Amino acid sequence: MLKKTLKIAPSILSADFGNFERDVIGLEIAGAEWVHIDVMDGHFVDNLSFGADLVKAIRPVTKCLLDCHLMVENPEKYVDSFAKAGADSLSVHVESTPHIHAVLQKIKAAGMRSAVVLNPGTSVSAIRHVLEMVDMVLVMTVNPGFSGQKFIPECLEKVRELNEMREILALNFEIQVDGGVNDETVISCRKAGADIFVAGNYIFSGNVAENIAKLREKLV
Amino acid sequence: MLKKTLKIAPSILSADFGNFERDVIGLEIAGAEWVHIDVMDGHFVDNLSFGADLVKAIRPVTKCLLDCHLMVENPEKYVDSFAKAGADSLSVHVESTPHIHAVLQKIKAAGMRSAVVLNPGTSVSAIRHVLEMVDMVLVMTVNPGFSGQKFIPECLEKVRELNEMREILALNFEIQVDGGVNDETVISCRKAGADIFVAGNYIFSGNVAENIAKLREKLV
Amino acid sequence: MLKKTLKIAPSILSADFGNFERDVIGLEIAGAEWVHIDVMDGHFVDNLSFGADLVKAIRPVTKCLLDCHLMVENPEKYVDSFAKAGADSLSVHVESTPHIHAVLQKIKAAGMRSAVVLNPGTSVSAIRHVLEMVDMVLVMTVNPGFSGQKFIPECLEKVRELNEMREILALNFEIQVDGGVNDETVISCRKAGADIFVAGNYIFSGNVAENIAKLREKLV
Amino acid sequence: MLKKTLKIAPSILSADFGNFERDVIGLEIAGAEWVHIDVMDGHFVDNLSFGADLVKAIRPVTKCLLDCHLMVENPEKYVDSFAKAGADSLSVHVESTPHIHAVLQKIKAAGMRSAVVLNPGTSVSAIRHVLEMVDMVLVMTVNPGFSGQKFIPECLEKVRELNEMREILALNFEIQVDGGVNDETVISCRKAGADIFVAGNYIFSGNVAENIAKLREKLV
Amino acid sequence: MLKKTLKIAPSILSADFGNFERDVIGLEIAGAEWVHIDVMDGHFVDNLSFGADLVKAIRPVTKCLLDCHLMVENPEKYVDSFAKAGADSLSVHVESTPHIHAVLQKIKAAGMRSAVVLNPGTSVSAIRHVLEMVDMVLVMTVNPGFSGQKFIPECLEKVRELNEMREILALNFEIQVDGGVNDETVISCRKAGADIFVAGNYIFSGNVAENIAKLREKLV
Amino acid sequence: MLKKTLKIAPSILSADFGNFERDVIGLEIAGAEWVHIDVMDGHFVDNLSFGADLVKAIRPVTKCLLDCHLMVENPEKYVDSFAKAGADSLSVHVESTPHIHAVLQKIKAAGMRSAVVLNPGTSVSAIRHVLEMVDMVLVMTVNPGFSGQKFIPECLEKVRELNEMREILALNFEIQVDGGVNDETVISCRKAGADIFVAGNYIFSGNVAENIAKLREKLV
Repeated sequence: MLKKTLKIAPSILSADFGNFERDVIGLEIAGAEWVHIDVMDGHFVDNLSFGADLVKAIRPVTKCLLDCHLMVENPEKYVDSFAKAGADSLSVHVESTPHIHAVLQKIKAAGMRSAVVLNPGTSVSAIRHVLEMVDMVLVMTVNPGFSGQKFIPECLEKVRELNEMREILALNFEIQVDGGVNDETVISCRKAGADIFVAGNYIFSGNVAENIAKLREKLV
Repeated sequence: MLKKTLKIAPSILSADFGNFERDVIGLEIAGAEWVHIDVMDGHFVDNLSFGADLVKAIRPVTKCLLDCHLMVENPEKYVDSFAKAGADSLSVHVESTPHIHAVLQKIKAAGMRSAVVLNPGTSVSAIRHVLEMVDMVLVMTVNPGFSGQKFIPECLEKVRELNEMREILALNFEIQVDGGVNDETVISCRKAGADIFVAGNYIFSGNVAENIAKLREKLV
Repeated sequence: MLKKTLKIAPSILSADFGNFERDVIGLEIAGAEWVHIDVMDGHFVDNLSFGADLVKAIRPVTKCLLDCHLMVENPEKYVDSFAKAGADSLSVHVESTPHIHAVLQKIKAAGMRSAVVLNPGTSVSAIRHVLEMVDMVLVMTVNPGFSGQKFIPECLEKVRELNEMREILALNFEIQVDGGVNDETVISCRKAGADIFVAGNYIFSGNVAENIAKLREKLV
Repeated sequence: MLKKTLKIAPSILSADFGNFERDVIGLEIAGAEWVHIDVMDGHFVDNLSFGADLVKAIRPVTKCLLDCHLMVENPEKYVDSFAKAGADSLSVHVESTPHIHAVLQKIKAAGMRSAVVLNPGTSVSAIRHVLEMVDMVLVMTVNPGFSGQKFIPECLEKVRELNEMREILALNFEIQVDGGVNDETVISCRKAGADIFVAGNYIFSGNVAENIAKLREKLV
Repeated sequence: MLKKTLKIAPSILSADFGNFERDVIGLEIAGAEWVHIDVMDGHFVDNLSFGADLVKAIRPVTKCLLDCHLMVENPEKYVDSFAKAGADSLSVHVESTPHIHAVLQKIKAAGMRSAVVLNPGTSVSAIRHVLEMVDMVLVMTVNPGFSGQKFIPECLEKVRELNEMREILALNFEIQVDGGVNDETVISCRKAGADIFVAGNYIFSGNVAENIAKLREKLV
Repeated sequence: MLKKTLKIAPSILSADFGNFERDVIGLEIAGAEWVHIDVMDGHFVDNLSFGADLVKAIRPVTKCLLDCHLMVENPEKYVDSFAKAGADSLSVHVESTPHIHAVLQKIKAAGMRSAVVLNPGTSVSAIRHVLEMVDMVLVMTVNPGFSGQKFIPECLEKVRELNEMREILALNFEIQVDGGVNDETVISCRKAGADIFVAGNYIFSGNVAENIAKLREKLV
């Protein structure tokens, strides 16, 4: 396995919905390489956020990797429109489709990075046979779409398990964590083997650049 | 029936998704009294647009009436969050729920204006028993969520029918049209009896203020 | 049309769930000829109440007509089990199935009385072509499954419309009202043309026999 | 309105599933101008029959108009594949989609004749606003997908109503009946105003050519 | 791991639906510490049984632990109403939701014991990452909602596996079995490691107290 | 484990839909012992193919084992009709139902061979607890219902895993592969441990008998 570059992926679900362009530009200036985009349809999760049109709008103003996390039913319906809108990476919940391999395949065929996502209650064994084909595994560290959620430390067990599996299987996927990441929890995430750290509320509470810097510090 | 004030309701589905705040402020300066917000969940219609969080974001920057058009399944789930976010009006498709009366009632109870929406293929008879309780009827003049749609003039027959019914029944609801409205079609809409005119692409193609002015001219 | 006998149908949704047998026997002694059974599946409406097993349990202890009101998705699935359990009448929401005629036909074939139900927002025109085949039309006067509901007087317009239609068409179906019926509202229901009056909370608040008697008084 | 040519449309749901080619050729030789194809998905109705691949297979061997009747959920998904397979006409149940106008429009745009279908319990008022756009209305005279069905004479009331409407509105759509059509019922269908007569079991029980001839006789 | 107290949990699905209060009191007198309540919605399983209102009705008359087994779709919808009704424990099928962790978390937050349920065909690996958070695992030994079911001895393999896992992981959850439990099968269940034994038909066929005693005997 | 007889199962999804009888007879003459029937409902997968009526039609003309592969939602609904139609074997996707054990049990009870199917992204661990009860496991080597699919060699890892498990557990199920099988891929499938080889396009492109012979050659 190649040595991974650690990356912070601010989630614009915590940005100002009236000023996505400004906030995305701000994130890039503050040093973010990735922007995390939480797509919710009000069915797979209760909240309804935004879709491919947002990707299309911010694509021209940033060089950040646009990392789209689908929390939707029938994820296969979204692949083409996100590719066309300029998404770089598309993440799909294994719980959201009986055809996870097909959807990931379709994402690759559309020229994007592909990732599979695990809810906190889902076992790593459920994705054993797609590990070879993905660029990333996203381990949720909160339950998406349920309010008032705190970081669930038990989920790091899965990060460790995945970290070992990629060693043993000589695979090269990255491991992303999402949910309740702040300057404390990020340390244990890193220790467990995560490479990419989604953070929303933490980054957008106060000074974005300072918050990103503080996270990065903990990752050194 | 009171004489209605004619109003233009620009749809921000055609605005810049990266700069909703700027565009909404621009609409208000350009003289719009209403802002139309197309909420789509990727299930009732194929597209996924945005939800209550957008309303929350633009509420503080505008005095325009925020006119939210739900194109979603299970619309009853959305009433509370839109009320809390600051929506002024909530429109629900009669085709989207077996409980249209209950949803409209819930909208009123939450302190918002309520409206019922008719797809192009839906008959006015389907909403006969909610006319007394709504503030507005929205007659779709295109099919929502199907691309490449043009204004469907046959839908104006329903506008005429509703216009007559409110006379006969001495009701006071407003009639809104949405879909393919431009400086030509707006005239026939007005003649048929519509009071509120949603326009998206027409308004945001070129100079917003000029386009709104042109529409308004045709309504004098 | 034959002169209808007016009947009161107490709903055991307001009875003691631990003592349905005792409460049903009590209703019969108190003079009820019908017992109304609200079957809810937590899908068509939010509440989950009970199914055919309850009918089976109370069938042996009462001669009352067991009047089962299905508030469920896929109502066709329930016909056989309710018939077998001893139900006398099965009511189906026109909003709950694309195959309302088929379900009503199946109910008749299973040897039960059949009824079609209208939610408050549903027009009488929706059931025009099943009126010839039903024994009863149930006009909801509240929205089923939404809490804190009050009697909706506007629904009586539909009772009047149905009453006229059965005269004109020389049909013989009964008209039932359900929701918020008490010793005041029952009068306007009767005047509008209803024949059968479902009441739950009103009857079970205090002395059941007295409450039934009070309702009956108003119907003379 | 132009004088319609009466046509018989044998349904190959009653043909030999192992020899569709032979049976379709036989129907054409026997004088059928249309072949009726019942597409069922096991969801809108309980039975699962066949899809666009069957149309593709028989298209090269017959000049008959291929008249495809969709009894499926999400009918919009099927338009392109049936057009490509060589279907001439596509019929959609108004009960199967909230977007009936859009689906009919899509059918026309794909170059096929379009039709809207009414289940026995569905009122003509439900399709008032698509009558102008369709080439045909199919009035079901049995409930599709429920076994042991007999011809429902009450459905002819809707045929009469539609027949009058096309006179009054000066429209040109054809009226088709489907379900339990035989050499007796066909007479009353014709009297009510139907132009196209689907028949399955009747035609395939015994000699196909003779049965078609017998039906035709009754239409003179 | 603490030594578990073995318990018998009679299922009132086999009680008299007209006399739940009497039967629950009888169970407590007969020595049952738990009462098992099978909640079925007619969707996750075919049968429709009862919901939170039953819990509310029997809560005041018994000190038994009310052990509610949800066989429903969208189990998250039921948590609040069961907590409010007085349920002590809520069990959720891992097959019924993509958000099993969130639902279990919500149950705990509502102050109830939480349990996860495995259908006979579901592997223990599917619940690996919720074992730490549950108070109980329910291993179904029949298929819920399919009639004429017999005890499936192969399911005990999962009981053994879970029993070993709680040793190895030093966890403290209880193991419950449900389905076809009688005075023979209970022995092998116990040997496999089960602690809590649901029984319905066996207990309610004949003398309840004697049947409970007979079961208990086999557990010594 | 008994030594398995290797078998080729031509899929008639690639046959001529107008001449199933002729093509099935041709397959038998060409030496096929099994005929594979791909049942698709347009919901579990996008395509709609055919149902039990096809089985009924070809049953009288062939002694081949009719091997029916259900790619449908709610598979339990199909068991009885396929049994009655004369199906010999019914295969069910573990991803298509929360009640896989119950459906397999129902298939056995109906007198057919039962099989469980794994999509390419599904892990073997998901079916651990039904291995004892099935006659066959079908490992998909393409994603069903997604067009332009090629053989996925990674799926053979699951064939190997299953082959080992049946040795270790002393089980007797057969292993079937389906998707992209041709005279090259069949060799690696055989090496991995597969016993039954579904092939569609390969067999029906050119001379059926020659193609079957070529496949068989590679299996010696």
